[in-house]
Amino acid sequence: MTRIWVINPNTTRAMTDTIAACAAAVAGPGVIVTGITSEIGPASIESHYDEALSVPGVLRAVAQGEREGVDGYVIACFGDPGLDAAREVATGPVIGIAEAAMQAASHLGTGFSIVTTLSRTIGQSAHLAERYGMQRFCRGIHACDMPVLDLDSDPNARKVVTEACREAVEIDGSDAVVLGCAGMADMCDEISRELGVPVVDGVSAATLTVQSLVTMGLRTSKRGDYATPPVKHYSAG
Amino acid sequence: MTRIWVINPNTTRAMTDTIAACAAAVAGPGVIVTGITSEIGPASIESHYDEALSVPGVLRAVAQGEREGVDGYVIACFGDPGLDAAREVATGPVIGIAEAAMQAASHLGTGFSIVTTLSRTIGQSAHLAERYGMQRFCRGIHACDMPVLDLDSDPNARKVVTEACREAVEIDGSDAVVLGCAGMADMCDEISRELGVPVVDGVSAATLTVQSLVTMGLRTSKRGDYATPPVKHYSAG
Amino acid sequence: MTRIWVINPNTTRAMTDTIAACAAAVAGPGVIVTGITSEIGPASIESHYDEALSVPGVLRAVAQGEREGVDGYVIACFGDPGLDAAREVATGPVIGIAEAAMQAASHLGTGFSIVTTLSRTIGQSAHLAERYGMQRFCRGIHACDMPVLDLDSDPNARKVVTEACREAVEIDGSDAVVLGCAGMADMCDEISRELGVPVVDGVSAATLTVQSLVTMGLRTSKRGDYATPPVKHYSAG
Amino acid sequence: MTRIWVINPNTTRAMTDTIAACAAAVAGPGVIVTGITSEIGPASIESHYDEALSVPGVLRAVAQGEREGVDGYVIACFGDPGLDAAREVATGPVIGIAEAAMQAASHLGTGFSIVTTLSRTIGQSAHLAERYGMQRFCRGIHACDMPVLDLDSDPNARKVVTEACREAVEIDGSDAVVLGCAGMADMCDEISRELGVPVVDGVSAATLTVQSLVTMGLRTSKRGDYATPPVKHYSAG
Amino acid sequence: MTRIWVINPNTTRAMTDTIAACAAAVAGPGVIVTGITSEIGPASIESHYDEALSVPGVLRAVAQGEREGVDGYVIACFGDPGLDAAREVATGPVIGIAEAAMQAASHLGTGFSIVTTLSRTIGQSAHLAERYGMQRFCRGIHACDMPVLDLDSDPNARKVVTEACREAVEIDGSDAVVLGCAGMADMCDEISRELGVPVVDGVSAATLTVQSLVTMGLRTSKRGDYATPPVKHYSAG
Amino acid sequence: MTRIWVINPNTTRAMTDTIAACAAAVAGPGVIVTGITSEIGPASIESHYDEALSVPGVLRAVAQGEREGVDGYVIACFGDPGLDAAREVATGPVIGIAEAAMQAASHLGTGFSIVTTLSRTIGQSAHLAERYGMQRFCRGIHACDMPVLDLDSDPNARKVVTEACREAVEIDGSDAVVLGCAGMADMCDEISRELGVPVVDGVSAATLTVQSLVTMGLRTSKRGDYATPPVKHYSAG
Repeated sequence: MTRIWVINPNTTRAMTDTIAACAAAVAGPGVIVTGITSEIGPASIESHYDEALSVPGVLRAVAQGEREGVDGYVIACFGDPGLDAAREVATGPVIGIAEAAMQAASHLGTGFSIVTTLSRTIGQSAHLAERYGMQRFCRGIHACDMPVLDLDSDPNARKVVTEACREAVEIDGSDAVVLGCAGMADMCDEISRELGVPVVDGVSAATLTVQSLVTMGLRTSKRGDYATPPVKHYSAG
Repeated sequence: MTRIWVINPNTTRAMTDTIAACAAAVAGPGVIVTGITSEIGPASIESHYDEALSVPGVLRAVAQGEREGVDGYVIACFGDPGLDAAREVATGPVIGIAEAAMQAASHLGTGFSIVTTLSRTIGQSAHLAERYGMQRFCRGIHACDMPVLDLDSDPNARKVVTEACREAVEIDGSDAVVLGCAGMADMCDEISRELGVPVVDGVSAATLTVQSLVTMGLRTSKRGDYATPPVKHYSAG
Repeated sequence: MTRIWVINPNTTRAMTDTIAACAAAVAGPGVIVTGITSEIGPASIESHYDEALSVPGVLRAVAQGEREGVDGYVIACFGDPGLDAAREVATGPVIGIAEAAMQAASHLGTGFSIVTTLSRTIGQSAHLAERYGMQRFCRGIHACDMPVLDLDSDPNARKVVTEACREAVEIDGSDAVVLGCAGMADMCDEISRELGVPVVDGVSAATLTVQSLVTMGLRTSKRGDYATPPVKHYSAG
Repeated sequence: MTRIWVINPNTTRAMTDTIAACAAAVAGPGVIVTGITSEIGPASIESHYDEALSVPGVLRAVAQGEREGVDGYVIACFGDPGLDAAREVATGPVIGIAEAAMQAASHLGTGFSIVTTLSRTIGQSAHLAERYGMQRFCRGIHACDMPVLDLDSDPNARKVVTEACREAVEIDGSDAVVLGCAGMADMCDEISRELGVPVVDGVSAATLTVQSLVTMGLRTSKRGDYATPPVKHYSAG
Repeated sequence: MTRIWVINPNTTRAMTDTIAACAAAVAGPGVIVTGITSEIGPASIESHYDEALSVPGVLRAVAQGEREGVDGYVIACFGDPGLDAAREVATGPVIGIAEAAMQAASHLGTGFSIVTTLSRTIGQSAHLAERYGMQRFCRGIHACDMPVLDLDSDPNARKVVTEACREAVEIDGSDAVVLGCAGMADMCDEISRELGVPVVDGVSAATLTVQSLVTMGLRTSKRGDYATPPVKHYSAG
Repeated sequence: MTRIWVINPNTTRAMTDTIAACAAAVAGPGVIVTGITSEIGPASIESHYDEALSVPGVLRAVAQGEREGVDGYVIACFGDPGLDAAREVATGPVIGIAEAAMQAASHLGTGFSIVTTLSRTIGQSAHLAERYGMQRFCRGIHACDMPVLDLDSDPNARKVVTEACREAVEIDGSDAVVLGCAGMADMCDEISRELGVPVVDGVSAATLTVQSLVTMGLRTSKRGDYATPPVKHYSAG
C-alpha cells in the first residue's frame, strides 16, 4: 500500500478536489491518493508574495505527513513552492508539478510551450524551467490572463485556455503543451484532442513520478543539501 | 492491458534477460513487459561505432512493435541509441534509460554521479546529460573500467561497481548515483544499501516512465521533428 | 534624508547589532540605517527549511517599512530570502547581500571564492550565483563548517574563517573573496590584510547599493514581475 | 599526394557527382578528391530515421578507405551522420559539412543564418550548432521546404533557395548564410552575388578543412573517445 | 576626500562636460569628480575600430591618474573600452558604465532593454552583457540609429531616444531601460517619467559604484589577471 | 596568386621570422606569405595592457595591406588582438591564431588542453574559448610560466613546454593540445611525436584557414558589425 499526499499550497478547497480527482484517476492499484489543502497562506498563488506565504503551509503539511508515514508528496502548484525545504523534511520523494510536467513533455517532442494564468507568473515558470534543466525544451511561456480561481468558475475558461494553447503552439513551433496551473488539471484531454498535440498536466505527471520512485524504493537523499535541517528555535511571531 | 517492449540494442540474450527481469519487477498490474533482443549489430556497445551499428536493429524492433500494437518502448542501453529515430517510427512513447535515470535522480538530491563501464563512453554520457538538460545535476561521470559483458560473468563485478560508486560520491560530493549501463540494472538495491544514497537504475526508471506516459494517454507528438518519416527507397547494401 | 532598513531575517538580535553597525559604518551623510530583527522564524538560517520559514518575517518587516516611508531595504542573510516577494511589496529598492557582494567582487578581479558557514548551504550559494549571472565570476564555494551563531561566540571564529578564505583562494586560483554570511560582516578588513586580496562583505555592499540607487532616484519597477501583488485573502493557519 | 574521399551518405549518385565537383573545384594541386556514394541506406536524408539508417553505409565507406590508405574524409550531408563513429574508424581527419560550414561562417561575420531543406530537419541543425559550439553565431535556421532530391530537378530550386536566404538574412539580422544541404553545394556563388553577403557551402569548406589538417600532419587522436573501437562480434541480422 | 576621474574615451570635450556634470550630480559629499577627455583617439566611438583606437588614450589617462593619486576611475563609454587593461594599471577600482548600468538595472526588475545609438554597436553591447553575466537580465538591445555626436546637437534627440525606449520596453516586455551611450546620461529622468519604468544611466551608476568600493576600502586585486603588467619596451611607432 | 600577411602584433622581428617560416611551410602553391612586424606597441604581449597597446599597430598593418591589395590576414598572437576592428578595416578574411587553432583541435578529439606562457594570460585564453564557442572542447588551460621572448632564447624552452603539455593532457584527460603562443609555432611536430596526441599550432592553422576562405571566394561580410567604420577625426595624442 502506497500513500501519496497531493498538497494544494493554496487554501481553496474546491481546487484541492479537482487536483485530487486528477491524481487519483491516474494512480495505480494499491496507491491511495489524498488531497491536502494548506491551512495557512493565500487563497490562490499569483505572485512571488503569494508563493512565499504559501510555503509554511506546505511544510506544515509535509511534517504532518511524516508523522503519519506518508510515502511521497506532490506539491500541486506550478511554482513548486517550498520544494527544496519540503525535501529536507520528507523521507520519501517530493515532486513539484512543474518539474514533472516539463520532464514528461520532454519525452514527447523536441520543444513544448507552457500556458499559464497571469502574465506576471511567466518569469517564475522560466526560472523553474532553467532550474530543472528544461529550458532547452521550453520554446515559450504564455499567459491566458485568467486569474487562478476563475478557471473553475468562468464558463469560458476552457475555451480561453484552449485558444491560448493553440496560439502558443503556432507561435513557438512547439510540438507539445504543458499546462502551467494545477487548476487546469482536468482540461488536458479536451485540449489535446482539439489541438492534436500532447498536452501535459503536472498533477497527473507528478503523482505518477512519486508512485514510480516509491515503486523503485527511491527516497530523498539524506546526504547533502536535503539532509534533515538542524534543530533550532523558531519564533511564531 | 499495456504492452511495453524493453529493447536491448545489443545481441546478447543473457543481458536481455537481466534487463527484462528488472523491468518486469517494477511494472504495475496490467502491464506486460517483453524483453526484445536486437537481431543485428554488436554483441555489446562500447564505442560510437558500436552504438551506430546498433541503431538499425533498434529501429527494426520498433517497427515490428508498431505492427503488433505495442504501447511504448524502452531503449535499454545507456547511450539511448536511436532515440530520435525510434520516436519518429513509434506511435507511443519511447524512453531511453539514460534520460529516465537522470531525471529520476534529479528529484532525489541536488547532484548525482554517473558510474559507467569503460572510460571511453564517458564522453557520450556527458553529451546525453547535456542533451536532456541534466548537465546541471550531473556532478561527475566515472568509469569502473569493466567491459559490459563482464558485468554478468566476472564474480568481482558487483564489488568493482560498488567501489566505483563509493569513490564517485566522495569525489563529486554528490548525493545520488546513476548506474550507466543496462547490465548493472540488478545491482541497485545492494549498492544503495552499502552506500546510503539512492542508486538509480535506468531500466526500471524508463519502464515506469513509459508506463506513466501511457497511463496519462500521452504519445509521441506527430507535429514537428518526430513526425513519421517521409517514405522513400532504402538500399540494403 | 534617506532611510534604509537592514533586515536580519533571523530572530537573533545580537546578530542584527553586528550587521547594523557594519551598514552604518559605510552609509553616507544623510543616510539613516536601522537594523530590523525579524519577529518570526528561525534563530539562524542554515537550511532551505530555515530559509523558507524566515521569509514571512522579512515580508512583514518590509510591509511595516512601507507604512513608515522607508526608502530602501537590505536583506541581510546570504541566501537573500524573500527577495522577489519583498520587491513586489516595496516601492524603493530591495537588495540582498549575496547579490551585492558578488557584484562588488566582480569588479575587483576576474574570479572570486565564496566562503560560507555550513557545507549544506553551498548549493544555495551556487544557485544564487547562477541567478544573478555571477556564476562566471565564482570560482568556488567553500564552507568553514562553523554554525552561524558560533561566528559571534567562538573565540576561534576569525581564525577558522581566515584559514578557510586562504585555502579557498589557493584552491580556486581566485583573486577576491566574498564572505557568505551576514555574521561575518565585521571580519573583512582583517582577513583582507592577512591574505592580500580584496574581501567583500555583503552587508556593506548591499547598503551602499541601496544608497546609490536611491541617490539616482531608481526604484523597483512596478511594470512586470515586481508589480504589487493582487489583493486576496490570506489564512493565518 | 593527398587523397580525400567525399562520402555522400545517401545512395543517389547524381548528388554525389554534384558534391564531388564542388569539392574538386576547391582542392589544391596534389589533392585527389573522390566522390563515394553510400551503398546502403536511404535515397535522401530527411529525418532522424533516414540519418540513422545512413550511418552503416558511411562507416563501411570509411573502412574501405582505410584499407586503401585514404588521407581524410568528408561526410557530405548536413546532419554530419556517423561523425563520431567514423572518427573512431579513421586514421586521418573526418569532417562533416555542417561543422566546416558553420566554422567558416563564424570568421566572416558575427552571426549567420542556416537555410536548409525541410522544416523537420531544423531541430537537427540546431543540435549540431550546439554540439560544435556554433550556437552563439547561429542567429536562425530556416527551411525552404523543398525535398532534397528536388534541389537538382526542380527548375525553381535556385530561386526558392535564394529567396529563403534573403528572408533569413532579413529576419535574423545576420551577415552570412550557411547552406544546410550538400545538394545546395553549387548554388553559393550565385546566391552570394544576389544577396551581397558571404554564402558558405559545407562541401567546399569541409574538403579544405581536411586538406588543411592533412597539410599540417594532424590526424584524429587515438587517445580518448576516438580510439579504435574494441573488436567484437557484429550480427548481420 | 575621495577623487574619482570620469574618463571620456573620445576626444569631444562637450561630451566630457555632460558626463562630468551627471557624475558630479550624484557623488556624495567629500567626493571630487573630475571629467577627463582622452587626448588620443576618435572623436566618437561607433565601431570596433574606434573603440580599439580609444584604448591607448584611456590607459594614458589612468597612468596619469595613478601619478596623481586618484582613488578610482569611470570609463565613460558604453563599450567599456580598455577596462581590463586599465585595471592592470590602476590601484583603485575601475568601472565601466555598461557594467554598472546593467548591474543597477538587474536590481530593479527581472529584465531590462538596452537602447543604444547605431545598430552596428548592438553586437558589442551583447558581448558585454554576456561578459558581465547580465545576459540573463538583458531582454533586448535596440538602436535609435542616431550618431553619438548628434545626441547633443540634434533638437529631436530626446524624442528619438524616448521613442526607442518606449518601443524597446513594449517589444521586449522588459521592466527597466539601460541607456547605452554616455552621451545620453542626462536624459534619464525625463524618459523615466515619460515611460513609467526605471531608466538607468551608466555614468551615474558607475560613479556611485566607484564611490561605494572606495568607501568599503576595496581596490583592484593585484593577485591574478589584474596584477601590474610586466615592464617592457613599447615602440611609439 | 594569393597574398596573405601574417601580422606579428609585437615588435620583435625574430619572432616574426619564426612565425612567417611556419606559415610559409604550410601555404599552398600560388600563395605568398609575408611576415609583418608591428611598428608600434610592446616587444611581447603578456598582459591586457600589452594587448591593448598592440592593437593600433595591427590596425595600421591591415590598413597598409588593404592599400596593397592583400587577400587575407593572420593575427599571430594567441590573444587575437584587434580581431573585430581588423575585420572592419579588411576586405578579405582576418583570422586569429587562437580561433583557428581551437577549431582545428575540435575536429581531432573531443577535448583539448591549451598550453600557454604566463599564468596571467590564462583568463584571456578562457575568454577567447568562450567567445569562439570552443569552451565545450577546452578541458583546461595551463601555463608553462616562461616569458614569451624566452621561448626563443632559453635552451630549455622546448623541454619546459613539452612537459607542460604532457601534464596538461594527463590532468585534463584531453586528447589534443593547442599551443597558446605564436612563439611556440615551431614546436608542434616534436611535442606531438613525444606525446602521441595531435598538437596544434595556431599560426599554421590560421594561415590555412585564410587560404581556404580565399579559395572559396569568401570575404569578411560588410553587412552588420564588420561594415567599414564611419569616417571621423582621430587625434594623434
